[in-house]
Amino acid sequence: MQIESPPVDYQRQQPTAERRGLILVHTGNGKGKSTAAFGLALRAHGRGKAVKIYQFMKVPSARFGEHRMFEQLGVPIEGLGDGFSWKSRDLEHSAQLARDGWTRAAATIAAGEHFLVVLDEIMYPLRYGWLPLEQVLSALRERPSHVHVVLTGRNAPQELIELADTVTEMTMVKHHFKAGVPAQRGIED
Amino acid sequence: MQIESPPVDYQRQQPTAERRGLILVHTGNGKGKSTAAFGLALRAHGRGKAVKIYQFMKVPSARFGEHRMFEQLGVPIEGLGDGFSWKSRDLEHSAQLARDGWTRAAATIAAGEHFLVVLDEIMYPLRYGWLPLEQVLSALRERPSHVHVVLTGRNAPQELIELADTVTEMTMVKHHFKAGVPAQRGIED
Repeated sequence: MQIESPPVDYQRQQPTAERRGLILVHTGNGKGKSTAAFGLALRAHGRGKAVKIYQFMKVPSARFGEHRMFEQLGVPIEGLGDGFSWKSRDLEHSAQLARDGWTRAAATIAAGEHFLVVLDEIMYPLRYGWLPLEQVLSALRERPSHVHVVLTGRNAPQELIELADTVTEMTMVKHHFKAGVPAQRGIED
Repeated sequence: MQIESPPVDYQRQQPTAERRGLILVHTGNGKGKSTAAFGLALRAHGRGKAVKIYQFMKVPSARFGEHRMFEQLGVPIEGLGDGFSWKSRDLEHSAQLARDGWTRAAATIAAGEHFLVVLDEIMYPLRYGWLPLEQVLSALRERPSHVHVVLTGRNAPQELIELADTVTEMTMVKHHFKAGVPAQRGIED
């Protein structure tokens, strides 16, 4: 039987190898960008690390399954937006919320008190021009070296991909919505 | 400003649309296959749904971050394997563990008492020939219609992709291991 080499996930390097915070990007048009970030948050919290999750496109009052669980676990998860913008008719308000939210997230990253900071759906405000990309890149470059940051959303800017340590593209091979099967509570939210 | 159409994640269909269990596959060589499954499990549990996680390549005593958290939340997570097989010299023993584990997982799926069953890293035993693919496909086809099943691992067999409702390929665009940065506790495990 042919046994392939181990996946990178389970390679273990020399104990002298570098330990430092990573910039991880989850992008692409497929499922799993945010849920994988939540899984990382769960894992880090399970290791006793401080975690903070910011969601740029969720309202502060969001009570999806993940919010209920993270609250129960004591992991702060904060909606910074007003929901997805095509529902909003006041785009200037959405833009202001994104900028205010970014100020908070940037301060958390800079403070260095968290092992992991998740910036969920930050690609939307970046793409809409609500947040200047250069500000975000600077905050990442200048962060305390032990802080891991996960950024999610479709169409990650090329400069961010270049700066990142690890970039995963979630590609939709097949999707049940396309076959007429609707969103399922507990799966999609 | 050009506002694109909403991502499929947030489309909402008519309330009359079909509600049923889905088969979701996370495959590809990138990060996030298992963590996205954990995020789904977290979300479903947050909605008050019964969830069970089987891990085909983890030992029963695994105490990674996710195990600590799911135990705290009361989500059963069960390692069925003996770790990754290239560490094992007794492949027949590994194969037997996979078959025994599959028997348990198949019974859970068939019983219909869980909203979501995760079969983490099941692609390994399928690929090694430890589990007959046809048995797994049959169990999925014949499951109670409300049961969602998530299957993870590289190189999902084509027949499984065809049967699945939703397939996401996690593609490694860039990985920190390649740049010599080692596994980081709390991020990789």
